[in-house]
Amino acid sequence: MINKVVKNADEAVKDIQNGSTLMLGGFGLCGIPENSIDALLRTGVKDLTCISNNAGVDDFGIGLLLKTRQVKKMISSYVGENQEFERQLLSGELEVELLPQGTLAERIRAGGAGIPAFFTPAGVGTEVAEGKEIREFNGKSYLMESWLKADFSIVKAWKGDSAGNLIFKGTARNFSPMMASAGKITIAEVEELVPLGSLNPNDIHVPGIYVQRIFKGSNYEKRIEQRTVSKPKITEENKNIVSQKTTVGLDKNQIAQRISQELKDGYYVNLGIGIPTLVANFIPEHINVVLQSENGLLGIGPFPIEENVDADLINA
Amino acid sequence: MINKVVKNADEAVKDIQNGSTLMLGGFGLCGIPENSIDALLRTGVKDLTCISNNAGVDDFGIGLLLKTRQVKKMISSYVGENQEFERQLLSGELEVELLPQGTLAERIRAGGAGIPAFFTPAGVGTEVAEGKEIREFNGKSYLMESWLKADFSIVKAWKGDSAGNLIFKGTARNFSPMMASAGKITIAEVEELVPLGSLNPNDIHVPGIYVQRIFKGSNYEKRIEQRTVSKPKITEENKNIVSQKTTVGLDKNQIAQRISQELKDGYYVNLGIGIPTLVANFIPEHINVVLQSENGLLGIGPFPIEENVDADLINA
Repeated sequence: MINKVVKNADEAVKDIQNGSTLMLGGFGLCGIPENSIDALLRTGVKDLTCISNNAGVDDFGIGLLLKTRQVKKMISSYVGENQEFERQLLSGELEVELLPQGTLAERIRAGGAGIPAFFTPAGVGTEVAEGKEIREFNGKSYLMESWLKADFSIVKAWKGDSAGNLIFKGTARNFSPMMASAGKITIAEVEELVPLGSLNPNDIHVPGIYVQRIFKGSNYEKRIEQRTVSKPKITEENKNIVSQKTTVGLDKNQIAQRISQELKDGYYVNLGIGIPTLVANFIPEHINVVLQSENGLLGIGPFPIEENVDADLINA
Repeated sequence: MINKVVKNADEAVKDIQNGSTLMLGGFGLCGIPENSIDALLRTGVKDLTCISNNAGVDDFGIGLLLKTRQVKKMISSYVGENQEFERQLLSGELEVELLPQGTLAERIRAGGAGIPAFFTPAGVGTEVAEGKEIREFNGKSYLMESWLKADFSIVKAWKGDSAGNLIFKGTARNFSPMMASAGKITIAEVEELVPLGSLNPNDIHVPGIYVQRIFKGSNYEKRIEQRTVSKPKITEENKNIVSQKTTVGLDKNQIAQRISQELKDGYYVNLGIGIPTLVANFIPEHINVVLQSENGLLGIGPFPIEENVDADLINA
């Protein structure tokens, strides 16, 4: 049978050359291909262009490759949480192309689908539109964006089989399925490598046709960027204690509480990073809304209680 | 909690007006929203524009709505297997827009994603390109296609819950997830309606946010268009007996056998309708290939034996 299994991360990345373009899965620190990044640190390959939603933190994820100066250019949607990234960007040592998050996802998908360009309303009238074609459709302005492709796409999945079929868990899925389709060579590292035929075909998120190499990863740290928990029960008394590790001023909570009054029964609500995520703690009890995390999962609740903390279920 | 359950098909389709644009899931006769089509026959709604891969057969699927002259226009990729469709097309009674199958899927997806136009190589230099903008990217010609949207999308899923989350089975999935995202109102009929929370979030194919109405369907016929089975074991002796219901000339098998010699170990092979599907019966024993059905499923084998026939696993 078709067998795409390689021994380990070192074997999987050994032919990645200086100057290559890589796509790397992950949102924040969730779903990071940790083993492959470690292997890239060992090969010392340089002048990489990395396409990834963000660049990890100073000592985790792509942040590690920034520190060793192996990255020439980042194509991302977010630069926060990483001081070295900020320093290299401001000093001009690192090229950075910043994109709206949906545009990043869609450009990657277009690369996988063979679509060289498409029109999107995101970024019209902003810096993002500079130098790009603007066109009207039905009286609304759109700008033209082009596909993104990579020499290598590197993703981390939950389960995979020897033919490269992949299943992700929770928000660890994020950009990875699109990236798998847009890489000339796609490398998948998985927590569990299972025999061919043991995954239910209906449950596959990435069909093996998109994956060229797969290996079982090890020693996953699965770090959580901002580990925030609720008390076991949210009562009127502890409602304002939303965080045990981050310090949140009362004014932010008041803003969040006011925003929560705009919600109506049956709404789907997307909560971005910052104050918006606090809104989840103030949903009035008489209405039901479905919360969407910034990375796409629907049905997000308030901060988890201690026992339910899961690095594969993170939010902005 | 959010509850999108309606009583039955009649309630789900009752506000579909004359002149509406509908998307209807299904590939061939696989994954047809049978209950909703029956309900549309009862309302007698007219002048419909139907976006669907094909139009069923004379007495099943959209074919039933053609017979009652409820359809003004079809946007499809295939017109075969339906004499009434052919008659109305040739007599000019029915408007038909024929599209390459991938273009149809991508235009529907674009509608759901908010992308008014995109570039594709499919159809360049053919009748499909007439009146469309052609543009070069990296020295290759592409034509611009526009999004498709619908007043109502009607899909049939295997399992669904009261919030509208859907899971499909096998090739019955086909165009349905994209259609669910591109309809102003999406109606889902399901074989099993399960309580909210009983479907594993990782397994959901269509998140409930795209579905406005859901009901448990009944009396599914799940007709198979061309029911073709293998003998239990394919031996040298019975290799040429590939069909019990269709008559296949020896020359076609000879062509298929010759084509099969072009396959190399590890190939992914897409088999279109007609002689190509016969190739599956002649794969040399010393190589392993992964067969893709025309409607997207990977890992298709030869014709099933009698006991394994499944209307949700069809091929072209």
